[in-house]
Amino acid sequence: MRIALVLFCFLSAGSIASAQQEDSIFIRRLSDEVLTNGKAYDNLRELTKKIGGRLSGSPQMVKAEAWGKKTLELAGADKVWLQEAMVPHWVRGGKDILTAPNARSLDVLALGNSYGTGEKGIRAQVIEVKSFDELEQRKGEVKGKIVFYNYKFNPRFVETFLSYIDAVKYRGQGPSQAAKYGAAAVIVRSMSHSTDNNPHTGATRYDSAYAKIPAVAIGLQDADWLSSQLQKAPVSVFFKTNGHFLPDTIGHNVIGELAGTESPQEYITVGGHLDSWDPAEGAHDDGAGIVQTIEILRAFKAMGFKPRHTIRFVLFANEENGGRGGTKYAEEAKAKNEKHLFALESDAGGFTPRGFGFEASDQQLQKIFKWSSLLAPYGGGKLVKGGDGADIEPLNKTMGVVTSGLNPDSQRYFDFHHARNDVFENVNKRELELGAINMAALIYLVDKYGL
Amino acid sequence: MRIALVLFCFLSAGSIASAQQEDSIFIRRLSDEVLTNGKAYDNLRELTKKIGGRLSGSPQMVKAEAWGKKTLELAGADKVWLQEAMVPHWVRGGKDILTAPNARSLDVLALGNSYGTGEKGIRAQVIEVKSFDELEQRKGEVKGKIVFYNYKFNPRFVETFLSYIDAVKYRGQGPSQAAKYGAAAVIVRSMSHSTDNNPHTGATRYDSAYAKIPAVAIGLQDADWLSSQLQKAPVSVFFKTNGHFLPDTIGHNVIGELAGTESPQEYITVGGHLDSWDPAEGAHDDGAGIVQTIEILRAFKAMGFKPRHTIRFVLFANEENGGRGGTKYAEEAKAKNEKHLFALESDAGGFTPRGFGFEASDQQLQKIFKWSSLLAPYGGGKLVKGGDGADIEPLNKTMGVVTSGLNPDSQRYFDFHHARNDVFENVNKRELELGAINMAALIYLVDKYGL
Repeated sequence: MRIALVLFCFLSAGSIASAQQEDSIFIRRLSDEVLTNGKAYDNLRELTKKIGGRLSGSPQMVKAEAWGKKTLELAGADKVWLQEAMVPHWVRGGKDILTAPNARSLDVLALGNSYGTGEKGIRAQVIEVKSFDELEQRKGEVKGKIVFYNYKFNPRFVETFLSYIDAVKYRGQGPSQAAKYGAAAVIVRSMSHSTDNNPHTGATRYDSAYAKIPAVAIGLQDADWLSSQLQKAPVSVFFKTNGHFLPDTIGHNVIGELAGTESPQEYITVGGHLDSWDPAEGAHDDGAGIVQTIEILRAFKAMGFKPRHTIRFVLFANEENGGRGGTKYAEEAKAKNEKHLFALESDAGGFTPRGFGFEASDQQLQKIFKWSSLLAPYGGGKLVKGGDGADIEPLNKTMGVVTSGLNPDSQRYFDFHHARNDVFENVNKRELELGAINMAALIYLVDKYGL
Repeated sequence: MRIALVLFCFLSAGSIASAQQEDSIFIRRLSDEVLTNGKAYDNLRELTKKIGGRLSGSPQMVKAEAWGKKTLELAGADKVWLQEAMVPHWVRGGKDILTAPNARSLDVLALGNSYGTGEKGIRAQVIEVKSFDELEQRKGEVKGKIVFYNYKFNPRFVETFLSYIDAVKYRGQGPSQAAKYGAAAVIVRSMSHSTDNNPHTGATRYDSAYAKIPAVAIGLQDADWLSSQLQKAPVSVFFKTNGHFLPDTIGHNVIGELAGTESPQEYITVGGHLDSWDPAEGAHDDGAGIVQTIEILRAFKAMGFKPRHTIRFVLFANEENGGRGGTKYAEEAKAKNEKHLFALESDAGGFTPRGFGFEASDQQLQKIFKWSSLLAPYGGGKLVKGGDGADIEPLNKTMGVVTSGLNPDSQRYFDFHHARNDVFENVNKRELELGAINMAALIYLVDKYGL
């Protein structure tokens, strides 16, 4: 039986089959290396527990940059440097407070980039709306009140990012839409279908045409409670937040490079973002992407893999409240007329991988989709059109670079996203590692076969 | 645009396409129903928090049976009954203790079905072996000692059940293999690659040819510590366990039925097991399978779905340390000459679904595999040959029934399996619900198209 099998393999093995086999063997070695000797989990523990939340401009941002440089060097980068980018410097400025009648304290977090109420706070009546449509219908009632956007995260989308896309407009545009009609402040139901009461922050964007009114996210249980109170009688609440901007400050993309052997002037970029919201440790968002990026470098070096193209491992600055790191990286690439083959980002959590999304031409997608069977044994075989990451999107938009985002399983992501429970303990070691394995395998394939 | 689309759909819709479309619409409705109104998570909270661990013969087993009957009735079963099965009645009998030198207490759990040391305990020298091969080589040194099987859970398997299959022999056969050479007791490294120190229990099987010596599972950190001590010098430990059997007692499979409209005498079975190990709440193992089973019934009833075949929703007794429930169910089915079309089990945790495994003929598999694209949008599209569940295996073995097991993502399963952290808090609501959705969809397809 064994002899027959060997003969069969020998006779049937054309060059395509043996290339596939070679790839399959390489990816297996890669997987063994990461699952056996992986450092992503230990690195994540360091980043989250020793540094913690690292919003742009914070002292933790500076520490995280130094940590990133050192860790990329330890992982074996040929060179590591900091690419300067001016970043916004928003600070929360203290504890966010929302007090309902009978001194009941609700769990809230000021939205990122929002302005505080001032020391005296605001006391006003709450008006609940379920949508912008309802706001429009009731615009005459809004003046001087606190608008409570109680739009529920839609549970019916299987991919939870679709629920996020559906709901996030109330966080992004809600304050200015309410200010347009004279609202004093805004409360936004958190973008989550978690079963706990943690509020989920995240950036808001003021429209300069309207007053920049204070805004908070509220936990789901408190949102339901507040809504139930409003069914019974008018409710006034006391509201105090302290957010404000300090002058822009200097931040950095941290970049490690592994030089290419055949086309060193052509680049493949892989990265995540180093900044994270202040109330948590930024473990899934995006500590995971950071340590996966570094792990790919470590594994390639440990295996003695020498890429044809130069690979850049980039820890991007300021994804959360400005996107200045990603913008800067693309600007400099364009200014220097660099040739970029591909860019990959992990910024959807350190969960078990399911596949990748791509911004690429149909012809390129045809080529890419053939790699599905090589990734499938590691969980990441579902390759689809559409998807990148906020930090690499400028490369695609300004230079037409093919971009891709890792798509991990999305069910748990919005339990943690921008909330205080986005901590190391909620990341599983193997799920994190499998993400890195699939990313490394994809980079290996792009490096070998081009696009 | 809308008119053009409607026309296109009308013209291109052949009967196959419209059947597929009908299925796709049904499954979407099913998904919406479960993700919007699902009761699986609330039911799991009740089962785990109000009843907890429910090993065969325990008072909690009796409570769980009553809960199961009531909950199946509430979910809308046409009838619910208890099917009696005699079950073994093993009790832990007290706290398991292992004390190393300098009074260092190690975290251990007696293996299920193991006999205790007696009141006085055992004090003996530890001999570490990495494998049965090493035990064989060193059999002359074993007499009177405590054999420590320190076989590591292999991290390289992507599917963690392969690591389990690889390692579990040390728990199952380890005590008797050591007793064969005169060992006094056994310590087994837990079958897990978790990062904590929780010991993982589970059933051992004594070979009646040898002494039934006491045996414990040890947490991974303690296993590594013990191994490191043994590198330096001989180590003796004190060891006390209290396990013993009481006489067999009466347990029950809890069975709910939804009568078929066309072939009520042909059965489809879906189930999980109601029993669980005592140190935890049995949330993933197998509370998840139980509440998913009940959820399928609830969703079918809520949707007004009337199956062609009779569907049995079975909460099996005694999977963990005897398998008597599954055996009884198949025995009675055979004795009554029942016609069983299909049986499905969920017993691999309430994690995000990836697919199903099947015990079926190649011809049946060809038919089944075509359903992959209908399940894929809900995560469960990976359909493979091989797989059932311990409770439905007897139906396959004795009656040739086609069986299937839900395959959720396996990365986290052995962090919790048979350990004290297998609790409600470690189950994600949506992951649990998606498992139920995929199971319900598969049952709908089997019911409609046969096998």
